[in-house]
Amino acid sequence: MRYPKAAEELIEYFRQLPGIGRRGAERMALALLEWEPEQQRLFGLSIARLPENIGHCPDCGAICTQGQKCEICSDARRDESLLCVVENMPQLAAVEKALSYRGKYLVLGGRISPLDGEDGSALNLELLRKRASSGKVKEVILALSPDVEGRATAAYLAELLSDLSVKLTRPALGLPAGANLSFADGATVTAAFSGRTEVE
Amino acid sequence: MRYPKAAEELIEYFRQLPGIGRRGAERMALALLEWEPEQQRLFGLSIARLPENIGHCPDCGAICTQGQKCEICSDARRDESLLCVVENMPQLAAVEKALSYRGKYLVLGGRISPLDGEDGSALNLELLRKRASSGKVKEVILALSPDVEGRATAAYLAELLSDLSVKLTRPALGLPAGANLSFADGATVTAAFSGRTEVE
Repeated sequence: MRYPKAAEELIEYFRQLPGIGRRGAERMALALLEWEPEQQRLFGLSIARLPENIGHCPDCGAICTQGQKCEICSDARRDESLLCVVENMPQLAAVEKALSYRGKYLVLGGRISPLDGEDGSALNLELLRKRASSGKVKEVILALSPDVEGRATAAYLAELLSDLSVKLTRPALGLPAGANLSFADGATVTAAFSGRTEVE
Repeated sequence: MRYPKAAEELIEYFRQLPGIGRRGAERMALALLEWEPEQQRLFGLSIARLPENIGHCPDCGAICTQGQKCEICSDARRDESLLCVVENMPQLAAVEKALSYRGKYLVLGGRISPLDGEDGSALNLELLRKRASSGKVKEVILALSPDVEGRATAAYLAELLSDLSVKLTRPALGLPAGANLSFADGATVTAAFSGRTEVE
């Protein structure tokens, strides 16, 4: 069915968000229409004002409050000798949620994908080189996703940093914790077997 | 992890939408942060301006462009002798999507639920009585959901309209089309068997 113009417009915007289809977007828009007018106004303004409120950290490229450094770069307890390169914020969030990494980050802002016309010119490569060559960083962890483009990007970054005296590493390939071996693909099993560790 | 204040605020708003958990809200907010500033502004304003842009149809209570009648009430091809009472817009949308009903609607705006303090005072009961007693309506279809509160509401509406010379009906109970009989609950099977129709 056709909704009023303002509602259709809203549905189209919701559909552009990840994981939201026409049906989900309709459901969200109709629910939003039941909110108090003041809540609708505040929600809308919190989106409309993102350009003023959110910027990128000058040290790592992560999103942060406009004009400030991000929380992680400002945190003196984080290990400055470790620099983890991630593609974007969701990937940074995934590493943070594991609660095990205590170093710093560099957010590339994308990856190299010649087929999509992404040649790397939009990435934070200068910032990466600056951080990696600052003398403080001992190890750069290239935490790109282990798929075709992620590997290509990691290889490109390794080349870019090859003249610096920093150790370059990448996360181990292997079976996901808690997974059933019977669902693992061949490449994962091969990597897990070739990187097998001794049982203690 | 903690996101910048403006992003956390946005995540909290997204979480209030139906079917969106913390993880989905984060994903949506982070994706939205990648949009062009102009798109963020337009999306935000399309929400912030809902109170000005969207109102309720004076004839049926459905959402519509502020100050107008809704499309269905304005459509002369729809059968005025049939009035379908639905709880809210998602339920109206479900009936419309079936493409088989060509009458008009009345959107109650909720249902009676004494446990949640909904005594019916917020419902469009006056509008319903006005429409049902206009002389144009021959049949009122009480299309409330066949659950406890929906039945209670339908019973209440039937009582409210009992003095009018309109036919009161409700949708048939039975097996959902395409469903597997083995998954049907007892009440549905009982209704489907007692309402069985002859094979022609």
